[in-house]
Amino acid sequence: VNPGMEAAGGMVSTPKALPYFVALSQILGLTVVAITGAWLGLYRGGLAWESALQFNVHPLCMVIGMVFLQGDALLVYRVFRNEAKRTTKILHGLLHIFALVIALVGLVAVFEYHKKMSYADLYSLHSWCGLLVFILYLVQWLMGFSFFLFPGASFSLRNRYRPQHIFFGATIFLLSVGTTLLGIKEALLFGLMNKYSTFHPEGILANILGLLLICFAVVVLYILTREAWVRPPRAEEQALSMDFKTLTEGDSPSSQ
Amino acid sequence: VNPGMEAAGGMVSTPKALPYFVALSQILGLTVVAITGAWLGLYRGGLAWESALQFNVHPLCMVIGMVFLQGDALLVYRVFRNEAKRTTKILHGLLHIFALVIALVGLVAVFEYHKKMSYADLYSLHSWCGLLVFILYLVQWLMGFSFFLFPGASFSLRNRYRPQHIFFGATIFLLSVGTTLLGIKEALLFGLMNKYSTFHPEGILANILGLLLICFAVVVLYILTREAWVRPPRAEEQALSMDFKTLTEGDSPSSQ
Repeated sequence: VNPGMEAAGGMVSTPKALPYFVALSQILGLTVVAITGAWLGLYRGGLAWESALQFNVHPLCMVIGMVFLQGDALLVYRVFRNEAKRTTKILHGLLHIFALVIALVGLVAVFEYHKKMSYADLYSLHSWCGLLVFILYLVQWLMGFSFFLFPGASFSLRNRYRPQHIFFGATIFLLSVGTTLLGIKEALLFGLMNKYSTFHPEGILANILGLLLICFAVVVLYILTREAWVRPPRAEEQALSMDFKTLTEGDSPSSQ
Repeated sequence: VNPGMEAAGGMVSTPKALPYFVALSQILGLTVVAITGAWLGLYRGGLAWESALQFNVHPLCMVIGMVFLQGDALLVYRVFRNEAKRTTKILHGLLHIFALVIALVGLVAVFEYHKKMSYADLYSLHSWCGLLVFILYLVQWLMGFSFFLFPGASFSLRNRYRPQHIFFGATIFLLSVGTTLLGIKEALLFGLMNKYSTFHPEGILANILGLLLICFAVVVLYILTREAWVRPPRAEEQALSMDFKTLTEGDSPSSQ
């Protein structure tokens, strides 16, 4: 695959533009988390677990877990191009576990808040999308674990599942961002009411947050879909794959 | 369709699952348009241009233009596998023109309605996203026209622009669907207010519409991203491409 690999100490060359796009994604992701925090701090009274402020734990946790960490988990294979595949895989799984746990805290926060305030649950489009995307995310994690981390699955099974895992991974990430936008919209319409149409600073800040969320999603998607930026297999993986190819007649793992 | 190119009539074989996915996308797309119409008819008083009902022209036009027709325009290269590339290209461009004109009518409707009612313009996240996506859509159309339909652009220029055109086309489509979800949410919160949390039938119907919009987007995206479903080049195109390859040393149009 890469003839000059040995000479350069086994390092795979990094595409020139990739680091800039990764840096941009991280700046956007961190800005999104910071603005969410600023919004909740400046206009919504900050965070607390044992009061009506418990609600505010919800948006912050969802943005950190379902948007920022989930997005970064998808980028792992593009960023760590010289690590062993197994290391990269474990990092991918770990980031998704962190995302899942943080999102779970965010979900508990909103359901406990609703209970405290005797609000109805799960009537809005935001809540329907959120429940759907969280269940899909759980299923995707379990499927990914059983196919790629659990040692049981055969190479041919992994190869057949891989494109589905990638497609649904990207789809779930985009749905998470879409659900977040619906949540921002809901918070603004319930919180600001008629003040929204007066270009109230809170409305402007949250609109900008929405646009930055979209930018983060687009940059992550752009990085993921450049074919030339896909992690090339390392020499050993290539050799291993070749061995299996000979053994199984084309039933080999095409490293992604 | 492509008469007598080869022994088997020159037909490129269609992947087995593709027609089912295309049928599913069309069922979902038409259902989305029908439910939007039903919602406006049943709960919002129907359509009219010269009254307060002018607003209702907006959601219907945006769903038909920016969602259904735009989605179908993206599928043209997967569906018409045996037409000449030029025919497919013109159909792609025409569907996008229809989408653009219908969306423009929808935009005029909402701005005229706002003026009539003395409502503020462009304060909400929905309107910001909508304006952004419409401008991007216009730019994408003009770029696509100048690179691919206008005869001036060289083969190498077309090849370098093609992946960008495809990425931004898919992105703009997804943004259109996301913006539509924000619009549904806005219409429900303004229209139903506290009735939304009582599981009012209008709320349930519009939530279902939102989920179906997501399903339509996911199915279209799934069809577009299957590598095996990309339109293969026809024999003449292949030959032409080969000729140019010889002439320009690798600077040939890889038919998409």
